[in-house]
Amino acid sequence: MKTIYFDNAATTQMRNEVITSMTKIMQNDYGNPSSSHSFGRSSKSLIEQSRKTIANSLNVSAGEIVFTSGGTEADNLVIKSAVKDLKVTHIITSKIEHHAVLHTVQELETEHEVLVSYVNVNQNGDIDYSHLERLLQTEDKTLVSLMHINNEIGNILDIKRVAELCKSNKALFHSDAVQSVGHYKLDLQDIQVDFLAAAAHKFHGPKGVGFAFIRKNSGLRPIIIGGEQERGLRAGTESVHNIVGAEDALKHANNNLESEYSYIKDLKAYFIKTLKTNMPSVTFNGNSADLDKSTYTLINVCLPIPPKKAAMLLFQLDLKGIACSKGSACQSGSSQKSHVLSEILNEEDLEKPSIRFSFSIYNTKEEVDYVIDVLKEFVEQ
Amino acid sequence: MKTIYFDNAATTQMRNEVITSMTKIMQNDYGNPSSSHSFGRSSKSLIEQSRKTIANSLNVSAGEIVFTSGGTEADNLVIKSAVKDLKVTHIITSKIEHHAVLHTVQELETEHEVLVSYVNVNQNGDIDYSHLERLLQTEDKTLVSLMHINNEIGNILDIKRVAELCKSNKALFHSDAVQSVGHYKLDLQDIQVDFLAAAAHKFHGPKGVGFAFIRKNSGLRPIIIGGEQERGLRAGTESVHNIVGAEDALKHANNNLESEYSYIKDLKAYFIKTLKTNMPSVTFNGNSADLDKSTYTLINVCLPIPPKKAAMLLFQLDLKGIACSKGSACQSGSSQKSHVLSEILNEEDLEKPSIRFSFSIYNTKEEVDYVIDVLKEFVEQ
Ligand SMILES: Cc1ncc(COP(=O)(O)O)c(C=O)c1O
Ligand SMILES: Cc1ncc(COP(=O)(O)O)c(C=O)c1O
Repeated sequence: MKTIYFDNAATTQMRNEVITSMTKIMQNDYGNPSSSHSFGRSSKSLIEQSRKTIANSLNVSAGEIVFTSGGTEADNLVIKSAVKDLKVTHIITSKIEHHAVLHTVQELETEHEVLVSYVNVNQNGDIDYSHLERLLQTEDKTLVSLMHINNEIGNILDIKRVAELCKSNKALFHSDAVQSVGHYKLDLQDIQVDFLAAAAHKFHGPKGVGFAFIRKNSGLRPIIIGGEQERGLRAGTESVHNIVGAEDALKHANNNLESEYSYIKDLKAYFIKTLKTNMPSVTFNGNSADLDKSTYTLINVCLPIPPKKAAMLLFQLDLKGIACSKGSACQSGSSQKSHVLSEILNEEDLEKPSIRFSFSIYNTKEEVDYVIDVLKEFVEQ
Repeated sequence: MKTIYFDNAATTQMRNEVITSMTKIMQNDYGNPSSSHSFGRSSKSLIEQSRKTIANSLNVSAGEIVFTSGGTEADNLVIKSAVKDLKVTHIITSKIEHHAVLHTVQELETEHEVLVSYVNVNQNGDIDYSHLERLLQTEDKTLVSLMHINNEIGNILDIKRVAELCKSNKALFHSDAVQSVGHYKLDLQDIQVDFLAAAAHKFHGPKGVGFAFIRKNSGLRPIIIGGEQERGLRAGTESVHNIVGAEDALKHANNNLESEYSYIKDLKAYFIKTLKTNMPSVTFNGNSADLDKSTYTLINVCLPIPPKKAAMLLFQLDLKGIACSKGSACQSGSSQKSHVLSEILNEEDLEKPSIRFSFSIYNTKEEVDYVIDVLKEFVEQ
């Protein structure tokens, strides 16, 4: 059967070059990076080289990159330690953050009596910057956690503006950039975030590795305690092959960024145009149909079909070999309504089926045509 | 140059079969296990199969295995959540635990006012069971955390006895089994621990994956928060290839356990005998020279040379291509004295250089001969 993978915001196919280099590492470089002998030193130098490459690509110093087991752990590390060790008592976030942020913040609210403020989000999924500014007028030690690119609707935060607002109001700023690192160039000298989270499997790297950018002298402390790995910020024997895989994937992503950007953006534009032509009453959630205000990697469509029929939709697409997502895949096992769409849609639209299609260089226009044919057929049935 | 890897307690060379199956997974199974489409379902079924295999090998049910990023995270998950969510107010442990346990307990002592008791350890590195029993006479909600096999001196805990003591005194029991899983058969119906930690890279699997056994209805909650992965006990996209690698490595380890046990134990016996013959004044730390009371995978030798010369020893061994360890490699970057040896040795012996040699099936008697020649030459120089 034909299979079409349009769920690249959930996770991506790995690049062959990345697999090759990881396989080599697993075969040859098995030393523990903490060992002082030659086997250990080679592993150590591999991860330090990876750290340097990643740091350079963000225009930060190597010591500011902490490898983690993924985006979720990076979010947890920053937010929890900010409260525990930096004595943050007030967190400003939004209701459309990823659960890695949202559930962490909620736990801190219940268990550490942190004050949580949610910045307003309009029906397009954009945050209200002047509301944010008002929320920042406080004497409380504040952390702002707002994602760079929303994983469901693709909205792009004006991350530089938020960083400046935070700086001028003496708040710390963490951005979950899991959907942007590897897809956009970020210069963290220009964008003055304090913390940032990324995950390799979103840019054709391995699953189970990510990193936190933690600006120098932040005072953060580890949430996983034990050995002195990662300059004391994250204990546990490093996943050397995964770390090198993350580096390699990011290197390839950045080297090909422009051409891949055009290719994928073109695909997205083609999807939107073809879908509108074939199904004029379709609508798009968030900014996802706006090529400038949303990431080029995804769209979120709201289909004009009744709820009863909608229940069959994902099943039908799956039968036809099409992989896409209702809400975000990172919400394991949940068949609940998307918390993001619940925030921005009216009741009526929320009842209709919304689907996220997310793209990569491995997709083609032929695939888009096929998917739209299937959608059309289903809607008209 | 000849290289000899005698540091298998720090980490192990990966089995080729494990690398092969991981490479295949990375090539073909890139779905996110949380996605409901076919790509997601295959990944999900891979990790659930891994969970089953591992659970079976420990004679527990699949739902009791939680995959983590390694042994350290598994230790942290159990100990921190026991305090936070199970309201443990008293932890009994020993001063010769791994830092993943020791530093975590110390943080809980400082920050959560947990009462910490250290069970006495004799000069062989054995815990005092009757002292443990006395410590258990308490009304406080208690967690005992004692490792199954010590990573520096190889001492084997009577884990079944401790489990029974804990049970009859209504204490919870966690065992760091990072050095025993994959090397010994453990039947957790017979050994009634509540929690256990393991790491794949200690038994020829990949780095950056491990698991916690968490007995059913334990009430533990996650320390990494976000999605509902691992039945809500550990958020974050699963490292599918690493998890399958862990399963595969454990399967191979268990399938070959008896033959590898004899081979390695024989190698260890040969090392001890040859070293004693060549260097009669050598001594062995802990129980490591006792083939019954210590793991077959390591010895810890104390060499009869003055401190000044000792400083050159590891350097010299490294020059000769020999990888071994002073203390444990998991203590990244630290050149401090081993906290384990500090507990059990007298001042005089502590000044002498102690070295851990740890073995695997990839080692040979020729390598032992070579290493002992080098040691002898160095000592006699
Ligand atoms: C006894 C023991 N516990 C815990 C660990 C930590 O495991 P990891 O480094 O995989 O996190 C190790 C070794 O590193 C160990 O030997
Ligand atoms: C925006 C965002 N943040 C965090 C995560 C969590 O990353 P990981 O699953 O690698 O832990 C994801 C996706 O899973 C995401 O899309």
